[in-house]
Amino acid sequence: MEDILISNNPLLNDVTLTGNQYLLVYNVFSFVVAAMLGSFVYFLMNANQLAKQYRNAAVISAVVVGIAGYHYFRIFSGWADFEFNEGYRYADWLLTVPLLVIELLIVLGLTKAVRRPLTIRLAIAAVLMIALGYPGEISTVDSTKWIFWVLSMIPFLYILITLAGQMGAAAKRESARVAKPIRLAIVLLLVAWLVYPIAYLFPVFFEEGNTMADTVRQVGYSIADLVARPVYGLVIFAIAKARTAELEGEPEEEAATV
Amino acid sequence: MEDILISNNPLLNDVTLTGNQYLLVYNVFSFVVAAMLGSFVYFLMNANQLAKQYRNAAVISAVVVGIAGYHYFRIFSGWADFEFNEGYRYADWLLTVPLLVIELLIVLGLTKAVRRPLTIRLAIAAVLMIALGYPGEISTVDSTKWIFWVLSMIPFLYILITLAGQMGAAAKRESARVAKPIRLAIVLLLVAWLVYPIAYLFPVFFEEGNTMADTVRQVGYSIADLVARPVYGLVIFAIAKARTAELEGEPEEEAATV
Repeated sequence: MEDILISNNPLLNDVTLTGNQYLLVYNVFSFVVAAMLGSFVYFLMNANQLAKQYRNAAVISAVVVGIAGYHYFRIFSGWADFEFNEGYRYADWLLTVPLLVIELLIVLGLTKAVRRPLTIRLAIAAVLMIALGYPGEISTVDSTKWIFWVLSMIPFLYILITLAGQMGAAAKRESARVAKPIRLAIVLLLVAWLVYPIAYLFPVFFEEGNTMADTVRQVGYSIADLVARPVYGLVIFAIAKARTAELEGEPEEEAATV
Repeated sequence: MEDILISNNPLLNDVTLTGNQYLLVYNVFSFVVAAMLGSFVYFLMNANQLAKQYRNAAVISAVVVGIAGYHYFRIFSGWADFEFNEGYRYADWLLTVPLLVIELLIVLGLTKAVRRPLTIRLAIAAVLMIALGYPGEISTVDSTKWIFWVLSMIPFLYILITLAGQMGAAAKRESARVAKPIRLAIVLLLVAWLVYPIAYLFPVFFEEGNTMADTVRQVGYSIADLVARPVYGLVIFAIAKARTAELEGEPEEEAATV
């Protein structure tokens, strides 16, 4: 199979992948589209299983995977035409990351007085994180990439440490039934989010023309987006479901049916 | 009608079909898209007919046929452009087969203590089955195809024997009204699933350039996907409906109306 030239994001250099690398990324992008659309339907249809005050978490999960599905559809279509635009990822993250924070805070059982200012601060930090990452992403100068990586890591770490702290406190506060999915959410969040700053630095670590690094980077981003959006959404749903069951006084056995 | 060249999954050899063979596969793919989308609407709209604890079976059926519809749309569009990518089938199966297992287990009336570990084991086996099948699918070497066929058949048989055993036990345990669709589901599952390992070996049994074998293979996969997704989903729905009627104390006659 012949090599395939991808004309990159107009600001970056073109890349020539092997046929196998091209096809792997092609299939992974299509897989992500299907997974986002499938989970979109799932969240929409199951939102009304939740108690009124948690329903919005499932609706926001649906919005997140719907938006991500749209962007992956665009990324996939570009890839099929041998074009790639990393800008779609940033547009996606700018919209979905603040929403991911909001859906989590809905199910953590915080008082409104705590939740409201926390949501605002974290949403602003999320926007800053994405906006500060972009100039480094489109630069081909290593020092510029490093500077914006460091700048972007400040809100990144603020968000991650704040959320992990809130989740840890919630897990201690709640019954075992609610605490179990919260602990799973902490692990998912930490694992998935770590992919992004590492993948970001791939062009610094690997010399230009290392097409295996480009391939791993795109597959890595895709898997991280799957874990941080639909899978994370399912765990948020499980937390909301456990809280709903508790509110309705369902016995433990029945409640765990997802 | 003239012969048609299909540029295959870049990893495989191109194939030249007769015009009639090309058109048959074209029409079958379009038919499958329509059937998947039609059943998607049906499952979505009827989920709320079911008792709360079985509703998710219909939602997951909708997700399954939605994802399958997306992949057949992609397969069809490729075919219309004289291109074929078998990778779509594997991406589809990787997402939908674990879901098919989950939707069945929801309606079998198992306790959570039995169902939870069974779901996890079977979902892992399903992913292994698909992942182990792919290297043989894209190989053009017969011995490689056989090795991955055998490897993939281990989780395949594990899943099929486990599910058939659980379904047989459930059919014995339940009333006639619930047992009837369960028995039908056993037959459907066994018949549809047998198509896959046979179609997989077609390129081993028939020499390259046997375009009738290629045609039968694509039509066979399509029919099996129709039986194993929308038709199977309807039977799952019938089981859930019968259980719902029993829960609500409906008389038998009324309940049998699907």
